[in-house]
Amino acid sequence: MARLNENYLKLKAGYLFPEIGRRVAAFQKAHPDARVIKLGIGDVTRPLVPAVVEAMRAAVDEMGSDAGFRGYGPEQGYDFLIDLIREHDYASRSVTIERDEVFVSDGSKCDSANIQEIFSIDCRIALTDPVYPVYLDSNVMAGRTGEARPDGRYAGVVYLPATAANSFSPKPPTEAVDLVYLCSPNNPTGSVATREALTAWVEYARGVGAIILFDAAYEAYISNPAIPHSIYEIPGAREVAIEFRSFSKTAGFTGTRCAFTVVPKSVMASTAKGERIAVNPLWNRRHTTKFNGVAYPVQRAAAAVYSPEGSRQAKEIVAFYMANAALIRRGLEKAGFTVHGGVHAPYIWLETPRGMASWEFFDRLLAEAHLVGTPGAGFGPSGEGYFRLSAFNSRENVEAAIERIGKIRW
Amino acid sequence: MARLNENYLKLKAGYLFPEIGRRVAAFQKAHPDARVIKLGIGDVTRPLVPAVVEAMRAAVDEMGSDAGFRGYGPEQGYDFLIDLIREHDYASRSVTIERDEVFVSDGSKCDSANIQEIFSIDCRIALTDPVYPVYLDSNVMAGRTGEARPDGRYAGVVYLPATAANSFSPKPPTEAVDLVYLCSPNNPTGSVATREALTAWVEYARGVGAIILFDAAYEAYISNPAIPHSIYEIPGAREVAIEFRSFSKTAGFTGTRCAFTVVPKSVMASTAKGERIAVNPLWNRRHTTKFNGVAYPVQRAAAAVYSPEGSRQAKEIVAFYMANAALIRRGLEKAGFTVHGGVHAPYIWLETPRGMASWEFFDRLLAEAHLVGTPGAGFGPSGEGYFRLSAFNSRENVEAAIERIGKIRW
Repeated sequence: MARLNENYLKLKAGYLFPEIGRRVAAFQKAHPDARVIKLGIGDVTRPLVPAVVEAMRAAVDEMGSDAGFRGYGPEQGYDFLIDLIREHDYASRSVTIERDEVFVSDGSKCDSANIQEIFSIDCRIALTDPVYPVYLDSNVMAGRTGEARPDGRYAGVVYLPATAANSFSPKPPTEAVDLVYLCSPNNPTGSVATREALTAWVEYARGVGAIILFDAAYEAYISNPAIPHSIYEIPGAREVAIEFRSFSKTAGFTGTRCAFTVVPKSVMASTAKGERIAVNPLWNRRHTTKFNGVAYPVQRAAAAVYSPEGSRQAKEIVAFYMANAALIRRGLEKAGFTVHGGVHAPYIWLETPRGMASWEFFDRLLAEAHLVGTPGAGFGPSGEGYFRLSAFNSRENVEAAIERIGKIRW
Repeated sequence: MARLNENYLKLKAGYLFPEIGRRVAAFQKAHPDARVIKLGIGDVTRPLVPAVVEAMRAAVDEMGSDAGFRGYGPEQGYDFLIDLIREHDYASRSVTIERDEVFVSDGSKCDSANIQEIFSIDCRIALTDPVYPVYLDSNVMAGRTGEARPDGRYAGVVYLPATAANSFSPKPPTEAVDLVYLCSPNNPTGSVATREALTAWVEYARGVGAIILFDAAYEAYISNPAIPHSIYEIPGAREVAIEFRSFSKTAGFTGTRCAFTVVPKSVMASTAKGERIAVNPLWNRRHTTKFNGVAYPVQRAAAAVYSPEGSRQAKEIVAFYMANAALIRRGLEKAGFTVHGGVHAPYIWLETPRGMASWEFFDRLLAEAHLVGTPGAGFGPSGEGYFRLSAFNSRENVEAAIERIGKIRW
């Protein structure tokens, strides 16, 4: 009889956001008149900018014409988009990325979940804790972990606590690991890795032969020019790092779906016998076998983000969200909270009052202020005692949220 | 040091279509004036129909407005699309499919490649030979096969030869397998499974506890009302079959990307200890962890395929391609070829002259007629001696292609 992949049975409860969705739906059903404000899921709220809409509309018209119709495109993405990525995201920061090192996809969630497939099941992974759940769950499903322990951690995984005690910037472990997931600017903590911190990671990876899986989906939110936007700004990173980027948060593409992954041809992994092989062709094989490219109108929409108008319009929206973040930070501090993040990332990571459990804080915030945030514990055991609020909302809602939080007596 | 997934190293050569692309590019470089006609990759050529373009344009406009913007949608797809699928693809054929049994995705290639993930690595798979390469390659990559043998077949896989000798409709094997990939109307052979043939498969699956992975991406091309469009038209299939559908060939979405997979909640697989568990929640977990939904404008475009105008316009294009198929069949027969398919599928499966090797036929057809087709051997050892031509082209090109083929002396 067909047997299932029992690694799936190791997964704990639902994926974080569906669980939040369930609790919010139950609350709204019980309180139909409550005006719930959602600062939970990190989803953008502002519409696509005019330059993007215009480009996408034009591409849809092309798709309806004999001359302009496009069927299957290259699975890796069209050169018109790849070349813009190379120029604006990399060459502009003195990083050389070749065409066949860029893989356009429909999302960083997909890419960061799928990347583990090209590595051995025996690879030892290291994750920050708290962490974006997809990195961990995709490895649990693949069988790269043991069972979850009572504290929620999976056997076989190296967890790197990221807490206020280390400024949310864990150092490389003393032991050797094979794959390291890093995310900067960080989801959920809102922290950002400095050049020094990234340099330490690149040196570690080079030393032990690890590969860094670097999620830079929030790089557009970096406000200090000294902070790297790409890990390839660190010398030597081209030999040890794969980078994920997305248009989701840069240009409001969460419902439009476009992202890309950079796999330098100089990144190598080994066979069991010790032969060193470039991973780029393996990722190319995966990408071309299991994916069929991003919709042409969506790639045209993404390309428009690099036009002078598109870029200016997208940056205005990022600035708008970051003004929200500053308001939330200030409002929370005024209400007596200890607050992190929100300076180089659209996430504010607050400490719950008196170390209250983060799901308890979630339930009280929902019940008393009709506000939805994300419990830190949902991102890992070291997220307990923290809570994430996102800056993705209207100014009006952000102001209302701050006012409501200020009124609660914890 | 990071180790790679060595199963990838078992894969033979490049994926079929990139290999064809390489040979065509080399030919065109050497013969820049040759007007090459491509009947190779099964890619549509007619533009999106007006109803689809209109719906997609309207949705793009929504995405650019405060009131209409949509961020993350449900990973499984919007209900407006799922309900149309349930009604038009299933209820209209007396099949009841529930909302949470439909998973909208960006392609059947992705779905049919990813589905194996939720099953144990120990599952024994059966494939027709020839076969759409993705079914096999995704299992090789996962480690569900041994090495490729000299004849191109992988150890551990049950191959079911589909040749003229069995009318391209292999019977269930005498041995028990766990997962069976079936595709009807078939790519590449252009054959179609009758109700009787599908009934035998469903009975086999129920008998041995196998799960059928049924690819119905070409169902819109079925021209005989007695032939099932869905495997769920067969009694008992809801307990043993997962079905893949796509808008790619139904409505020209190869460059627009939308498909869906149906996983009935009644399909069960077992744990090693023999516990029976529904696979629908596992697929849901995979889909929500590793995928972030299809672009909203694309889902609106897909929904328009079910409108009265959209449906009529899409059917006109299918009829256009099938008229091409009839022309190709007739032309080939006139030229002395033995021809299969092309009646319920946009693919013509011809026997090469005097059993010529199919890559040799490919090279001669390219060199002498500047025509591109797909070598049967690229789909599996039993495809040797066959060659696939697709009906996806302009009438002018199809007529020119037939004329050119007729002139070659084999």
